[in-house]
Amino acid sequence: MIDVREQLAAVRRGSVDLLQEKDLIAKMEEGRPLRVKFGADPSAPDLHLGHTVALTKLRQLQDLGHHIIFLIGDFTGMIGDPTGKSETRKALSRDEVRANAETYRQQVFKVLDPDATEVRFNSEWMEKMTAADMVRLSSQYTVARLLERDDFAKRYEQQRPIGVHEFLYPLVQGYDSVALRADIEVGGTDQRFNLLVGRELQRAYGQPPQVVLTLPLLEGVDGVQKMSKSLGNAVGVADAPQQMFGKIMSISDQLMVRYYALLTSENTTELSSRISAQQLHPMAAKKSLAGQLVARFHGSAAADAALAAFEGQFQRHELPSDTDTHVWEADSPDSSVPVVSLLARLGFAKSNSEARRLIQQGGVRIGNERVVAIDATVAATGRLEVRVGTRRIAIVEFLQKKHE
Amino acid sequence: MIDVREQLAAVRRGSVDLLQEKDLIAKMEEGRPLRVKFGADPSAPDLHLGHTVALTKLRQLQDLGHHIIFLIGDFTGMIGDPTGKSETRKALSRDEVRANAETYRQQVFKVLDPDATEVRFNSEWMEKMTAADMVRLSSQYTVARLLERDDFAKRYEQQRPIGVHEFLYPLVQGYDSVALRADIEVGGTDQRFNLLVGRELQRAYGQPPQVVLTLPLLEGVDGVQKMSKSLGNAVGVADAPQQMFGKIMSISDQLMVRYYALLTSENTTELSSRISAQQLHPMAAKKSLAGQLVARFHGSAAADAALAAFEGQFQRHELPSDTDTHVWEADSPDSSVPVVSLLARLGFAKSNSEARRLIQQGGVRIGNERVVAIDATVAATGRLEVRVGTRRIAIVEFLQKKHE
Repeated sequence: MIDVREQLAAVRRGSVDLLQEKDLIAKMEEGRPLRVKFGADPSAPDLHLGHTVALTKLRQLQDLGHHIIFLIGDFTGMIGDPTGKSETRKALSRDEVRANAETYRQQVFKVLDPDATEVRFNSEWMEKMTAADMVRLSSQYTVARLLERDDFAKRYEQQRPIGVHEFLYPLVQGYDSVALRADIEVGGTDQRFNLLVGRELQRAYGQPPQVVLTLPLLEGVDGVQKMSKSLGNAVGVADAPQQMFGKIMSISDQLMVRYYALLTSENTTELSSRISAQQLHPMAAKKSLAGQLVARFHGSAAADAALAAFEGQFQRHELPSDTDTHVWEADSPDSSVPVVSLLARLGFAKSNSEARRLIQQGGVRIGNERVVAIDATVAATGRLEVRVGTRRIAIVEFLQKKHE
Repeated sequence: MIDVREQLAAVRRGSVDLLQEKDLIAKMEEGRPLRVKFGADPSAPDLHLGHTVALTKLRQLQDLGHHIIFLIGDFTGMIGDPTGKSETRKALSRDEVRANAETYRQQVFKVLDPDATEVRFNSEWMEKMTAADMVRLSSQYTVARLLERDDFAKRYEQQRPIGVHEFLYPLVQGYDSVALRADIEVGGTDQRFNLLVGRELQRAYGQPPQVVLTLPLLEGVDGVQKMSKSLGNAVGVADAPQQMFGKIMSISDQLMVRYYALLTSENTTELSSRISAQQLHPMAAKKSLAGQLVARFHGSAAADAALAAFEGQFQRHELPSDTDTHVWEADSPDSSVPVVSLLARLGFAKSNSEARRLIQQGGVRIGNERVVAIDATVAATGRLEVRVGTRRIAIVEFLQKKHE
């Protein structure tokens, strides 16, 4: 296996918590493939790029020779929230769980090597567990420590109800680490608490505690909020190649570097310095990122086609090669956008009143048309060239929002 | 069955909480034998009179035609406190539970009619329960409500640990009411919270909620603290007839009325007014109480013998018939008591210095001896007549403390 120092550097890259590093070093020094646990919620099988941050890390660990266990939490999934109060915890039937697991498999194996990945279901051991075992399991943890978990603390503080069963779920999740004898558990920073419960339960059950490795939550294409389907800022793993390519092309240069760091194995320090030294144009770097991601989920032929389509649509005109392209989602093919808002969103005007002044001064053109009315609007469809004076040019491409 | 109003009066007598009375009336009006649950902790089978307060109430309900279910919590008993932190929750083996249950049976059936009592064990349904069932059960209650229970609230406040399993035990106890389809649950006031959990769980499982009937905790023979073996103020159900008789004779007149109220079916209003009207001497009433209780646990022959022994020991002398008799436990047959303390405890002196003054004045006699030294002591054994002057007389009888 690869040198421990080198492995550590690869593990640390892009991660947030590594608890405890000394435990990881000790485990790695044993020279055996480590058992890496990753838990998936069977109620939400449609992955977006945010979910693949952890998968990317798992792939790196897999490439280092470690053993990946992809755990589907079907026991908790099939119970759900028996109070029926939580939408995200709706009880699933065994068939739904199996169907979701199949969807997972298809999506996950675009990132992970299927031959080196073990897929498990926690019903395997949880269905054998009796009520008495559950009492014994829960004796291993205190009420006060569970009430320290951020979301519980907040709800308790605000007098919003917490069902007692919600205290059992982190214990079940932690017990999964015992059942799997996990060496490492990987998860998002929002899972930090639950991952640490696993560490402590393993100790209570006489096992060496797992190493907890957390990864940041990826921002959506808006670069502000964490990626989430419901916020409309997500790039779905199942998005069509051109749509995926276009969404990636719409992100800011800064976010692009972060996506490189969290979704690829590329050396981002080198990438950033090449961009700074003008050896690499940000647009080219973004095309390369978009190409890599589309290739990962749809194959390299689809990636090439998406690149060609993008260039065909947006770059056939003789435009300065550094023209910014902004890809925006439109609410519907029929919606329209005031030119004033357009100028403000593009950063060509600091305020709506400045935008109105620019129009009044006669310096604003959309395509070949000079804009004369300060309340002019454009249809939010297709592609537009927006110019202010002769120096400021931008391309806006409206994508139709995918309706789910 | 007996008229509802009459039944209600019998149920209310001596009780603390009756929740909700309207539910009880509705249930009684159905005219069927109600299912009355009483839960017993299998870790402490040696009963004292404090435990029999509830049994007395159960007997009254039994005499009204209702069905008593004596439930032994062996499921929780056999798990105990898996952290090993609680002495009172030491895990019991199946054999220990069965042995304790047998002890219970012997003691309990001195109060209850064995033919009309159903003895059950909660392992019957709890051992069939899966971990998933336990999750569903715990979804029926919130963390915040459990943290309202006095002892949990105090421990949380004081940052003393509460194991998550301790939150499951009240739910198990409540679920027992569901499994038994209890109409009424009887318990001490310290069980009020747990009994109410049963009420709510029944509602959650679609059953009419049980009526909660709580009974006061009986004071020990000292009349101050609740009866407890470890406080040395308990009258054990298995105490020998003479010892039991003597302990009852040692209680204050006020406490005697309370014992009548909580341990017998006697009309205490009538009793108190007969005593006030000097139609009944408190000593006679106390003898009658002691006789009833000894008869209950040892039979009427033993009660007669205990009375005769008591009278033989304490009443052969010509003493004013209203002489107070004080029965005290001695630490050991060899221990001695300063006369000064004796006078203070008998209320003949308000302070040790007043007691010393009485001795110096030459007015104190023990038996036929005048006490001359202010540091005189008497052996704490047998029976003493203590006199101050000619008017104040008391009899002190030392019992040997039973060593367990």
